[in-house]
Order: sequence, then structure tokens, then C-alpha cells
Amino acid sequence: MKICARTDVHYAIRDVVAWADKVPGEKIHLNIGDPDKFDFDTPEWVKEGMIRAIRDGKNYYGRSEGNPEVLKAIAQRDEKFSGRAPDHSIVTQGVAESIEFLFASLMDKGDNILLPSPIYPQYLAACTMNCGEPREYHCIEEEGWNPDPEDMRKKIDDRTRAIVIINPNNPTGAIYSKKFLQGVVDVAAEHDVPIISDEIYDMITFDDYTPMSSLAKDVKLVSLNGISKNYLSPGWRMGYSSFYNCDELYESCLRLARIRLCANTPASYGLLAAYTGDDSHIEPLKKKLLTRRDLMMKRFDEMGLHCVEPKGAFYAFPQCPGDDREFVKGLLEKEKVLTVFGSGFGEQGKGHFRVVFLPDEATLSEACDRIERYVKSL
Amino acid sequence: MKICARTDVHYAIRDVVAWADKVPGEKIHLNIGDPDKFDFDTPEWVKEGMIRAIRDGKNYYGRSEGNPEVLKAIAQRDEKFSGRAPDHSIVTQGVAESIEFLFASLMDKGDNILLPSPIYPQYLAACTMNCGEPREYHCIEEEGWNPDPEDMRKKIDDRTRAIVIINPNNPTGAIYSKKFLQGVVDVAAEHDVPIISDEIYDMITFDDYTPMSSLAKDVKLVSLNGISKNYLSPGWRMGYSSFYNCDELYESCLRLARIRLCANTPASYGLLAAYTGDDSHIEPLKKKLLTRRDLMMKRFDEMGLHCVEPKGAFYAFPQCPGDDREFVKGLLEKEKVLTVFGSGFGEQGKGHFRVVFLPDEATLSEACDRIERYVKSL
Repeated sequence: MKICARTDVHYAIRDVVAWADKVPGEKIHLNIGDPDKFDFDTPEWVKEGMIRAIRDGKNYYGRSEGNPEVLKAIAQRDEKFSGRAPDHSIVTQGVAESIEFLFASLMDKGDNILLPSPIYPQYLAACTMNCGEPREYHCIEEEGWNPDPEDMRKKIDDRTRAIVIINPNNPTGAIYSKKFLQGVVDVAAEHDVPIISDEIYDMITFDDYTPMSSLAKDVKLVSLNGISKNYLSPGWRMGYSSFYNCDELYESCLRLARIRLCANTPASYGLLAAYTGDDSHIEPLKKKLLTRRDLMMKRFDEMGLHCVEPKGAFYAFPQCPGDDREFVKGLLEKEKVLTVFGSGFGEQGKGHFRVVFLPDEATLSEACDRIERYVKSL
Repeated sequence: MKICARTDVHYAIRDVVAWADKVPGEKIHLNIGDPDKFDFDTPEWVKEGMIRAIRDGKNYYGRSEGNPEVLKAIAQRDEKFSGRAPDHSIVTQGVAESIEFLFASLMDKGDNILLPSPIYPQYLAACTMNCGEPREYHCIEEEGWNPDPEDMRKKIDDRTRAIVIINPNNPTGAIYSKKFLQGVVDVAAEHDVPIISDEIYDMITFDDYTPMSSLAKDVKLVSLNGISKNYLSPGWRMGYSSFYNCDELYESCLRLARIRLCANTPASYGLLAAYTGDDSHIEPLKKKLLTRRDLMMKRFDEMGLHCVEPKGAFYAFPQCPGDDREFVKGLLEKEKVLTVFGSGFGEQGKGHFRVVFLPDEATLSEACDRIERYVKSL
């Protein structure tokens, strides 16, 4: 049976789970960015928003782009957050579906999209699926993993269809500075290429944060967001894309949205509840995460693993000795700690590994003890 | 801005809504197959299954293929229903996502997939999106819209990657007879081509029904199903594909499933509740629908519109005088009854229009009065 080559896509974050399944015994999971698998839970008022919708009979097909009151809540949130409401938004099944709609609209064979390196692997797969080339530009580890506009300028050409940034970043935990963001905007303006700005962690920040829409006023921009991370509901698959200055791209994504009818209707009312609540869960969430980040950074420092301090999200991306695949495999087999090998995040991921600092302090300390023992054993 | 040609996809069922938005006043909606917009509701125990999952903290990323207990419930249901458990299943965001995974795995430029004509438009769009050719085979109106294996034999070639059947059928309401189904199996066996059998309405039947998996024992088969229609929860987007004799195709779809992480986790526990309940909603549902079908058929007969009697689902596909687009537009503008033009369902849809018999009898009678008045005015 012939299977199309473009489905030869891989996703390191899930692939390591297959490795772990073969290793007997309890493991410490530092591999997946799912707070709900640790001591975090969806805020009650967000849950109740979805439950109310189910009970009230909102179990029908919603509008393909999202129901009007949901879109209104998104526009108001985006405006409150960045000072600027989008021209249009489309509710999607996670940010994953937004990426699919955008890449399918933009990429034909021979086209490329500029991706930050290291890169969240879904973006690599979306290029492969759409027969296009993922072209990675450097992020500068010495500059806190900020994106390098000069390297973008070297990589961009007339088949470049978009520039992706992920801010706050997965896998590095970076928050991009205004200076570097302005550099990205300049490159996009010079080449009239749209920016796709993935901002799914934009409320989980430990430093000053600048939404791209507040800066990129005269360029085409699509920002990606949702409640998976900020409102601790990843399993609901509630994302959206917001479009600025790019009506044609919106129209194309809307056509694709119509084909699959709609996203989950009750979950979209969970998003509505999230975006009209008081966000009182955010400060306790950040406080917990900050304590855990600091614990982990101190331990990495003590064991001599170089790691840029994460300023947002819940990932750290330390360097590791030797081949990163071997390192991660060995750590799993010898110490039963599951992490993700850096080369799963593209070229610049090599020689690193990704961990989450989501577990409670006791578990995180135990994980660090094991990592330290493993590093010393090499 | 260049937008890829393959995103030039259309979906007649949603496109007519844009027409309706321009016509002032209240309309009678016979256009969309969404029982929850009429006097039907998701069974309470199915709702409670999803609500319990939300409250119990099952808001995390589930497994990409579906959580083990959900897959077990699917296997048991499939076995109970057809006497045969699938080799594998993958939970997807509606059947729409199953179609995407399958067509992306099977189709490259130059490939074709055999589709029944008239055809549910999502399948046409999935071909366009994957740069392949939708190749329509005849269904025989005089034989209750059964598929024609002889016409399949004329259309199949060495670039044919699958044969799709939809049974019970949307838009015709047909239920395929064993004789014709066996004919399809024979064609698939002769050419070693997988059958994709869309069975999303398989509990809404008013006649003997044969699941394809009970018949197609030695061929490659993927059956598509979900709770949208049988359990009246279309907005939850809970579908799945079940694979028989085609491990490679399963592996490819699983890779694609991993990229988007998972389907909606709490909704998958709604499916679990549905598939482990007593199905006591089905008889009352069918009774209501049957009364409405009979009412509509009687009225079509009286006004001289030829219509094959639907044996399943909740669609009827009568012939109409003149051009079907014009007919549907005129009916909307003059009588404010919204239906879907048959040519939106491919070649053999021409000269027909699709209606749902979901509204209560009073509304349905009023709709029929208006259709009759409109037909007489032509």
C-alpha cells in the first residue's frame, strides 16, 4: 500500500513516549507541557462555562469561525491585552488547526516558511505536510534565545511565505525583547511577508512581555492563541487565530474552517468564560512556576549544565554533554527521567534537551538528583 | 498575497447560509443536518459523561489515538454492532478529521478516489486540498440510490487510492442493500483498493442495515463513525476511524494524529458514556423522524416532486424543476425556506435539492405549503 511521503512526519515530544513505554517501572515525566498532569487544574469558572453550555443545549454545530459572542470576547481580550483588536478571528481546534489552515493557505511545493530554531516540531510537520520547506533561522542563545533578524535576512527569498515567531517560546522559555521584535517587523516589512506570532503562553510570563500586534502595525500579522496553557485546559483544544491586515489569508482559512464545520461548541463557551473572568488564577500559577523554575535553575547551575533562564512558559532548554538523543535515552533508561532530545526541535536544538518545570518541588528535586547522578556518570 | 489554489474549496451546505443572511425576515431552515437545532437534544447520560470528565480533571492532553478506555468502548461497540472488532481505531475531531488523515495519507497529485455521486461535499474538498482528483461513480436513483459497482469498474484505474461509500447516505437517505454492498466489496478485492465506509448515521435506520465490516472480511477497510448524529451531539466533534486489514494506513493516520496532539479529551468521555449506555433514546428518535419523513414524502408526492424514500438518516433528496441553484435561491427569496442545491453534492446532484425532515410537524407542514406554492408558481 502506497502511503504519501508527506505524512512521514514526526513529533519528538510524543515519540519519546514510545521509548518510555519500553522502559519498566515508574518514571518522572518532564517531557510534556501539560500542567493538568501535575498539580494544576482548569479554573472552576472556566469549567463551569463549558458545563453550562452543555446543559443549556449548546451541543449543536456552531458557526465555522466561532459563534459571535465568542468572537466578541476574543476581540475584547486581544484589545485589552495589546491595545489593538484584530480585524477577524477564527476559533480552531487548538493552535494546531490554526497552523494547518495557515500553512495550507500559504505553502505550495517550492515555498518556504521561516521558523525560529530551535522550533516547536508541529511547525516542521506542517511544512512537510504541505510539501513546503521549513527554513530555520537562528535564535541567539547568548541573547536569551532572541530571534536574529540578520539571519532572517540571509535566509529569506522570494519563495518565503511567512515568518513564524513563538513568544513566549517553546522550547526555550524565552521572552523576546522589543528590540529584537522590532527587528523581525522590519524584515517582514522589507519583504512584505506576513508574521505568524504564536503567543499561546502570553499570560505565563516572568518578565516584560510585548504582544506582536502592539508593535507590528503596518505589516500583515496573524497571532495565535488559546486557553490551553493560560487557562490550564490543553485537552479542550481551544485555540484561535487573529488576523491583522491580511483579509485574503483570513478568507482562505475561513473556507478551510467551513469544510470541518466547526470547533467544539461547548469548549468555545469555556473560552468565553475564561476571557470574561477575573484571571485570579494567574498570579498563584506564576508564583508556583517561578519557585520551581528557580529550583531547577539552581540545580542545573550546581551540576554544571548551562541553561538560559526561562522568562515565560514552563520549559527550560539546557545544554547536554554529547549527542542529545543518546543523552535523553540514557537518562530515561538509567534514571527513569523522561525528557525530550533537543534535535527534535530542529537544527539549533542539537546538544540540548527540553524539560518542563511543572512538577512539585519534591518531584523536581528528585528529578534533579537523578539528572545530576546521570551527568556525573558520563 | 498568493493563496494556494488547493484552498479554493466550497461547501454548499454552509455557503447557502451566506445567501440566507442577505434575505430579510424569519426563514424555515431545512438546510443543515443538525438535530440539536430542532426538538432533539443530546441524551442526559451522554452529557453527564462529558461533564463528569471535566469535573474529574480530565482536561489534559489525552493520547493522540484516544485514551485506552475510550478505544476499548469503541472496539466493543463495533464488535456488538457488526460482529467484528477493528484492528485499531483513532479518535478524531469529527469524521472530518478522519477524512483529512486518510486522504492526506492516500492521495498525491495525479491520484484519484472514487466517490459516490451525489456526494457529501466534504469529500470533494478533501480531494482538492490534497491535490487529488475526486472521481464520482453513479448511484442509481431507480434502485433507491444504491451504488453501481459496474460504474465503479469503469471509473477505477491504477491511480485509484480508495473507494468511498456513505451508508446510510447523506444526501439521499439511502441504505445500501447487501447485494450492492457485496458488489462494492468485489470491486475493492479485484483492485486491492481500500474501502472507506462512512457510517455516521448507522443507528438512525428505518430498514435493514448492513455494516460494511460484517461483509468486507478480506479487503482493506476503514469505517468512519462518531456520536454527532446517533447521540445528537454534532457540536462536540467526536468521531473516529476504525481500521481493518490496513496497518500501514493506520500508522500513517496515527503519525498525523500525533502532530495535533489529541482530540477533545472530555468529549471523548462523552463518547465513552454513549457507547456504554442503554441506547434508550434511539427508538423515540426514530419514531419522531419516521412520522416526519412520512409527512414530507406524502406532501412531495401530492405536489408532484419525485423523491426516493429515505431509509435512514434525516435527509430527503427530491428532484426539482429546472436549474437546482436557481430553484433553491428562488425558494429562499420568495418563500423563505432554506434548502441546499443538489449540484453542491456533485454531478448527480444536479436537478435535485436536499432537505432535512428534522423540524416538528407544524413547521414541516408550513415548509411544505410554501414549497408547494413555489413549485406551482414556476
